[in-house]
Amino acid sequence: MPSKQIYLGVIGVGGVGTSFLQQLSKLPSPPTLVLLARSSQTLLSPAPAYSPAIPAGDWQTASANPSLTKSGALSPSEIVSYLSSAPSGSRSVLVDNTSDPALASAYPQFLKAGISVVTPNKKGFSSDLSLWKDIFASAASGGALVYHESTVGAGLPVLSTLRDLVATGDQVTRIEGVFSGTLSFLFNTFAPVSASSEAKWSDVVSQAKDLGYTEPDPRDDLNGMDVARKLTILARIVGLQVQSPESFPIESLIPAELASLPGTAAGIQEFMTRLPEFDGQMTALKEQAEKAGKVVRYVGSIDVAKNEVKVGLQQFDKDSAIAGLKGSDNIISFYTQRYGSNPLIVQGAGAGGEVTAMGVLADLNKVLERL
Amino acid sequence: MPSKQIYLGVIGVGGVGTSFLQQLSKLPSPPTLVLLARSSQTLLSPAPAYSPAIPAGDWQTASANPSLTKSGALSPSEIVSYLSSAPSGSRSVLVDNTSDPALASAYPQFLKAGISVVTPNKKGFSSDLSLWKDIFASAASGGALVYHESTVGAGLPVLSTLRDLVATGDQVTRIEGVFSGTLSFLFNTFAPVSASSEAKWSDVVSQAKDLGYTEPDPRDDLNGMDVARKLTILARIVGLQVQSPESFPIESLIPAELASLPGTAAGIQEFMTRLPEFDGQMTALKEQAEKAGKVVRYVGSIDVAKNEVKVGLQQFDKDSAIAGLKGSDNIISFYTQRYGSNPLIVQGAGAGGEVTAMGVLADLNKVLERL
Repeated sequence: MPSKQIYLGVIGVGGVGTSFLQQLSKLPSPPTLVLLARSSQTLLSPAPAYSPAIPAGDWQTASANPSLTKSGALSPSEIVSYLSSAPSGSRSVLVDNTSDPALASAYPQFLKAGISVVTPNKKGFSSDLSLWKDIFASAASGGALVYHESTVGAGLPVLSTLRDLVATGDQVTRIEGVFSGTLSFLFNTFAPVSASSEAKWSDVVSQAKDLGYTEPDPRDDLNGMDVARKLTILARIVGLQVQSPESFPIESLIPAELASLPGTAAGIQEFMTRLPEFDGQMTALKEQAEKAGKVVRYVGSIDVAKNEVKVGLQQFDKDSAIAGLKGSDNIISFYTQRYGSNPLIVQGAGAGGEVTAMGVLADLNKVLERL
Repeated sequence: MPSKQIYLGVIGVGGVGTSFLQQLSKLPSPPTLVLLARSSQTLLSPAPAYSPAIPAGDWQTASANPSLTKSGALSPSEIVSYLSSAPSGSRSVLVDNTSDPALASAYPQFLKAGISVVTPNKKGFSSDLSLWKDIFASAASGGALVYHESTVGAGLPVLSTLRDLVATGDQVTRIEGVFSGTLSFLFNTFAPVSASSEAKWSDVVSQAKDLGYTEPDPRDDLNGMDVARKLTILARIVGLQVQSPESFPIESLIPAELASLPGTAAGIQEFMTRLPEFDGQMTALKEQAEKAGKVVRYVGSIDVAKNEVKVGLQQFDKDSAIAGLKGSDNIISFYTQRYGSNPLIVQGAGAGGEVTAMGVLADLNKVLERL
């Protein structure tokens, strides 16, 4: 296939961003990296020649290169303007490796200008329905592409599979799964299938926090919002008009008494200190499930016919795939007309810099194939 | 995206072909069907106008349309010639819904002529390594695309996932799974996890045959060749130079004494009649596994570092994902450097007209997006 010249702007050099740049640098024929932005710094290849390129594998020392332009933080409009000045016949792609809602809400600007967007950032796809619609309408009008596989299940083939099912005319009836690596780890440890565990909930949370499996404030995992955002995306792909992740029931695992503690270091510490007061409630839930020969898990589900999205605790048979999940794995089951009573299942690590970046890079490869 | 005019030739109207045409007819903007071939008949839109098109949803009555050209069976060269006379600026795609090795060995001709190929036919990708290489080299030289997702696991996202892992630089270390819906059903029924089963092997085979789950001659499933072909494809995608599916060990489940019975109706009947003589051997295998707290399953595996491909019986822990498989589901586990100790798993129906056709149509959609 004849391939156009592709110019790449990458925002974010956190865990995912760093892995992405590393993986990008090892592609046999990578696109030309011309913009690399981190919080307050932007590195640019001088326009309009877009030369020299920024070396993706060596970006940390590239800012010392006098041939590259250094700038402070650029606004989304400024980035659109820079990337859309690419020479005629070439195309530009934005890779957003942040979780920034402001940048996400500017995707329509990029897309209308013909700049494709690849991102693991959930915000653009799981906020107001109007933004979702604006993103896809803008892509169509600008002749640009949007890929966001890593917004659900990191590098696992979740969205691509669901889009294929829908595009080929299968009827998706139900989607169910464990969508949070953090909550997967917490429940697999707190209520394992194989042995009855004496573990206290607060100890498990504390352990996960120490291992870096939770957000700095574990309440950002325990509130269920991350799972709700993923369900919002899946439901919209199936065609449900979900207004926002707040428009369906989310069962929060934060005790009401601790919800209003501030998100400061002191507030987080007080949360962790007081969490043991509520261990009895979680143990009761675990024991109740055990009496029924089951285990408790934190899941999301979509019932398409009922137009119902739910996020929260449910009991599962011990020999079910969800109960048998290991470590911090995700599992997503698609029930469809064609697949019948046994769902199509995708399972594996659903978080982590390397596998998330892999999903972003695989998306970028698809965009490069199509542009 | 501006889309080119795409002309489609479809070969085969068996179980997969029929489902494919049905699904194709429901696409919002399907490509133009200009050639439809079944064993001894070919229906064509008169070239060079390629008009009128063949109605995909109504192909069975279309042969009565006097505006369409009827012909006997065309050779691959004749089909290449017909499809490559498409007007300048348009593109053609061959969808091969047969399992014909002769047509598969002609893929390079199609591809060199710029005709893309989409197929669930394993033969082209699992025969001699020279044909595999010729196919992909021809695609590159002809600027055409080849997609064959449904050659492994039907519509399950198996090959696309593996190609993404490889293309983004992950190190695939091991692939393991149950790749045959028929053998999955046989062992899930013969040696279920939950209850000890008194089922005799020959009865289970007979039941599967009656349900239409086996090939007309069950030895075509029991010889392991179908699984070996799938493993050959996966191994080649990972980069192993597998010469042919005969170049690694395949454990056949056909008793040696019955292997040489002819493939005629009488031969098949004698096979089924004499199979009970060998029930003791299979029961012994089952009981041996049970003593170790395990179950026996027919699996394929690839150890990349050892360059080792194997197909045959293995014992699995009862709480393993492979042991817990239901019905005639497939399961494929990818062990990679990035995914660590817990593999990326894809599971679900790996056979059947509807889900296989869905994989073919999803591939076709990707080709349409890229052409």
